[in-house]
Parts: sequence; structure tokens; C-alpha cells
Amino acid sequence: MKSHPIRFPLAFVLLAGVLATGFCDILPSWNDTNAKREIVAFVERTTSKDSPDYLAKEDRIAVFDNDGTLICEKPLYIQFAHALDRIKELAPSNPGWKNTEPFSAVLDGRLDGNGLAHENQHRDFAKLVWAVSENQASGDSASTAVAWLDRAENPVLKKPYAKTVYRPMRELLDYLRSKGFTTYIVSGGGSEFIRVYSRKLYGIPSGQVVGSQAKMAFEERNGRFEVVLQGEPEFFTNGPAKPFAIVRNIGKRPALAFGNSDGDLEMLQWTTTGPGPSLGLLLHHDDAEREFAYDRESTVGRLDKALDEAAKRNWRVVSMKSDWKQVFE
Amino acid sequence: MKSHPIRFPLAFVLLAGVLATGFCDILPSWNDTNAKREIVAFVERTTSKDSPDYLAKEDRIAVFDNDGTLICEKPLYIQFAHALDRIKELAPSNPGWKNTEPFSAVLDGRLDGNGLAHENQHRDFAKLVWAVSENQASGDSASTAVAWLDRAENPVLKKPYAKTVYRPMRELLDYLRSKGFTTYIVSGGGSEFIRVYSRKLYGIPSGQVVGSQAKMAFEERNGRFEVVLQGEPEFFTNGPAKPFAIVRNIGKRPALAFGNSDGDLEMLQWTTTGPGPSLGLLLHHDDAEREFAYDRESTVGRLDKALDEAAKRNWRVVSMKSDWKQVFE
Repeated sequence: MKSHPIRFPLAFVLLAGVLATGFCDILPSWNDTNAKREIVAFVERTTSKDSPDYLAKEDRIAVFDNDGTLICEKPLYIQFAHALDRIKELAPSNPGWKNTEPFSAVLDGRLDGNGLAHENQHRDFAKLVWAVSENQASGDSASTAVAWLDRAENPVLKKPYAKTVYRPMRELLDYLRSKGFTTYIVSGGGSEFIRVYSRKLYGIPSGQVVGSQAKMAFEERNGRFEVVLQGEPEFFTNGPAKPFAIVRNIGKRPALAFGNSDGDLEMLQWTTTGPGPSLGLLLHHDDAEREFAYDRESTVGRLDKALDEAAKRNWRVVSMKSDWKQVFE
Repeated sequence: MKSHPIRFPLAFVLLAGVLATGFCDILPSWNDTNAKREIVAFVERTTSKDSPDYLAKEDRIAVFDNDGTLICEKPLYIQFAHALDRIKELAPSNPGWKNTEPFSAVLDGRLDGNGLAHENQHRDFAKLVWAVSENQASGDSASTAVAWLDRAENPVLKKPYAKTVYRPMRELLDYLRSKGFTTYIVSGGGSEFIRVYSRKLYGIPSGQVVGSQAKMAFEERNGRFEVVLQGEPEFFTNGPAKPFAIVRNIGKRPALAFGNSDGDLEMLQWTTTGPGPSLGLLLHHDDAEREFAYDRESTVGRLDKALDEAAKRNWRVVSMKSDWKQVFE
């Protein structure tokens, strides 16, 4: 005890806090492994008044990637799957699509999202994603997506997309919020699309969704002014654009960042090299039985550079297989 | 009573709510005029469960312009005044400025912000504003601004800038929040600069400040990753860019918008032509005795088109002279 004169009382206080809450009641879908222990210890030491790592509430910023971190992204990002269906629905009123790539590829079945085999398919899908909300007023694009999310199914897991949220992550969001953290989504996906379901599925309000955004125009339509979405992106929130978007929308370096792919690398680098306490987390999809197993070679959610960096920077790699008791609701 | 069979009980409920709180305790720095009555009535009817205009908490979005709406903007926007002082401070380490406009104009006193006489001075000031945070890490630029705000004085009002917040507006922000509204600043000023004081002066956290933003770069500096501000804007949140920024950062059409100049026109148009209940407000600077009197001809905070539009669209024009009992703290 002599060598840690300050740390022992603190450890006791933190432990007492955890015991009071009940360690087993916290994050019940997580196994009692180092991942859960590290998360709980981080939350305790940043929220206990006597801790040297105590953070004021306004500094308890936690950012989460969406696809592959909060919800299943395989075999295809949900927004891509939605775009495929919408292109078919909208085709009758867009006769030109029959002869225009990549729309024609969707309509005659060459592009079906059955695995994003090539990098250029990402570009094709991006085009489709922005095209389906083109000329819609902001807010209106939500109505069609709501209905679609209730009926469309993940083709491999055979359950509605709304049921492919990771239960351990939903628990983590709730736990963080119960401890005074503000939880944000920082995603390459379109804000407008994620906002359709973020409150219902994650308890995250629209103002805490930081995603990609279409170019916009301001128009009067039938006596009502509208922000009209254009068919191309203003920005794509991936890689370094994630920290940029956090500066723009949140204005603070986060204390906790959770991602699952190389697109989250810079967000984790920025979060974990700040002056205060921080925790970087990466979800590793290593559970072919309950979900999917993929990392360095995947065209969706590739996790390669960030996995190397995790070892160097002591980011916690969360194993879906070993650290999660249950994957879905 | 026969002709309003539903409205009378409702009016009674709303009135009871106001009486219970105490009408005089609400917004004490406001005179008991139509402006205050309209604001209180709007808040009551959007937050009383039995009202047909009831808004769920997540839809109680209130957006406020900053300069000239929450804080005095005359004789010069505070961020412009700050940039003038910083240019002088930074001049020794930027010898090239002596021979480069508009920096040289500041250094030899030709540009002192004593009234923005010409439109092109706006462009000059914009250059200065972005230049003073160039190459600084996001967050670091705050430290110099904090110290400056505590000592620098408004040259006409002869009081520190921090004391030029409008007390009736601070009361309105508090009142709205006490009724479940989320209050946002949507300003042409730089987010980074406003965030320095938004919590302290307005009770508004950094994530609810929606302002102009510098271009950014991602760099590793001494083992720490940083978002580094570039010397030019990525976007300027004025005019139609205000609704765009609201879509981007908040993702909902506001229920209440409060501005004071033509730069707020589109924000008010968008807010007040949505499908739900809404309130548009414009602060009219008509009080030369206690503050300033300016509108259609002013180069700072020009209020011209929006004043015409207010009459057409039933926006409430708040007279500083008649509607405010007290202007400053």
C-alpha cells in the first residue's frame, strides 16, 4: 500500500460506486471480461467527484460510429439497401434511369448489393443514395424511409433492419447517458437517413446525429419555404472528416470514441491523444456464428490500419465473440 | 361563449398555467406589452398537454441569432473587434503583414472598425477574423479569446463586452429551457469564437452553437493529433445558409426563431412556414438612449427586407425601446 498512497482510497471509492450500482446490472449483455471492466472503470473514474480524472458534464462527450458499431452493416450498409429498393420504386417516374449507370445496373439486377465486391461499387452506391432524396424537402425524405425500415429485412440475418441493432451497444449508450455523458453518432451515413431511426433505436435525438449531408437549396413551394436536398453530397463524414464534423457540430474533443473500421481511425486518434482522460474502442466482428466475421479484407467496414493502431495506442478491441453475451435483442 | 366552445376551456387552462407561475415572474425585464404576451402565450400553448399546438420536447427547438439579438453588435461585431486587437498582438511574429492588405490597414490605423462604412470592409474583416486563428488547433484559439473578453470594452457603451448581453434575452433563453425547449445559437459569427462564451453568457453548450467554420486539416503535432484551423472559411452561416446549417446540425425545423437583421430572413421564413405552430421574432434596435437605433441603412446588422417581411408574415417585431424594461444586466 505504501507505493500507492493516493490510488488505493480512490480505487476503493470507485469500486464502492460500482458495487452500489451492481456490476452485474450494468451492461447485462456484456460478458464479465476486460472490455466491460475497462469501460466501467473509465466511466467511474471520469464521473466520480473525487477522481483526478473527473470530467464536468459538458466534457462527457461520447461519439459512436453507426454502421457496424451500433447496427449490423453486412452484407450491405442499410442506407445502400434502402437506396436499391427506392431506385426500383422511383424508376417509373424516372424513365431516363433505364439508360443511365448506375441506375440501369440496379434495374436490370447487375448491382444488387450482394457483397460490395469492388471499390467502385462504393461510388455507384453513393450516387444512388443521394439520388433517392434528390429534390425532396428536408424532413420529407424521412417518411418513406420509416415505412421501409419497418418492413425491409437483412437478407442474411433474416430479420428486419430495426432488429439488427446490437443490444450491448444500446446498453452502453443508456449506461453512458445515465452517467451524464452526451452520446453522439458520427457516421459516414447520411444524417437525414440516420435521424429517421436514431431516437427510436438508440435514444439519440436528431441534433446529436453527425453524418454526411446533401447539398441544399432554399425554395418557396406552395407558400411554404423548404430546404431542398440536392442529388449530390456537400460532405462525406469519413476518415479525417469525422473529427472535422465533431469540431463543426459538437465543438469539443470527445472523451470516448467507439468505431469499427478504418473510417474511424482519425476519430479515435483525435479522441485518445487529447489532454484529458479518454477511451478508444473498436468493435471487432469475429463472430461468424451469431453475426459476421470480417476485418482486413472486407470491402464493407474494412478494419486494417485501425487494428494495427489499436495495439500501439491501447485502444480496447471489443470481440463480439468473447465480450458479448448476446448480440441482438 | 357559444362561438368558441373548445377555445374557452383551453384559454382558461393556459391562463391558469401562467397565473400559477406568476406572469410577472416570467421575463421580469420585459414590459407587459404585446411582445411579452405573445411569447408567453406561444410557450404556454406549445407546452400545455391539452393544447392542440402541443409540441413534444424533441420538437421544441428555438434558434437565436447572436450578434444584435443576444448581445450588442455596435459599433462593431465583437469578433471583428477581437480580430483587430489580435492582429496588433500577432504582428511582430508576422512581419509580412506590414505590406499586406488588409493587415497593414489595421496596423497603421486606417481600418479601426469605427463604423463599418463600406461593404468591402466586411470582406476585409472576414479575412482578419479567419487569419487570427490560422494554424491554431481547434480549442486552443479559445484561450486567448477568453482573456480578451474579460478585459476588452465596447468603446461606445464603455463596458466589457461580456456585459453587453441583453438581459431580457438571457431571461427568454432561461424561460424557454425551463419549458423544455432546446436553445441554439445560429450565427454568422465563427463557432469557435462564440463557444468561448456561450455557456457562461447564455447557458448554451458548445454543441448547440451553429456558426461559421474555418477549413480544417488533421495533423499530428508532438505525438498529439489535432484539428488545425486554416486561414479561410469553409462556410459562412448567413442568409439561406442558416436554414442549411440548422438541417446539418439540428435536423429539425425550429418552432421559434429570433433574429435582428436581413441575415436572419431565411431562418425566419423557414421556421414560420412549417406545418406546426411557430413564432418568428425580430429585435428592432430603436433605442438610441439605452443602446443604439438602426435598421434599414446600417452596415452592421441591416434590417430592411426582413422588416417588410415581418409585416406580411406576422412576425413579432420586438421594440427595444417599448418592450424592454431593462436592456443590460
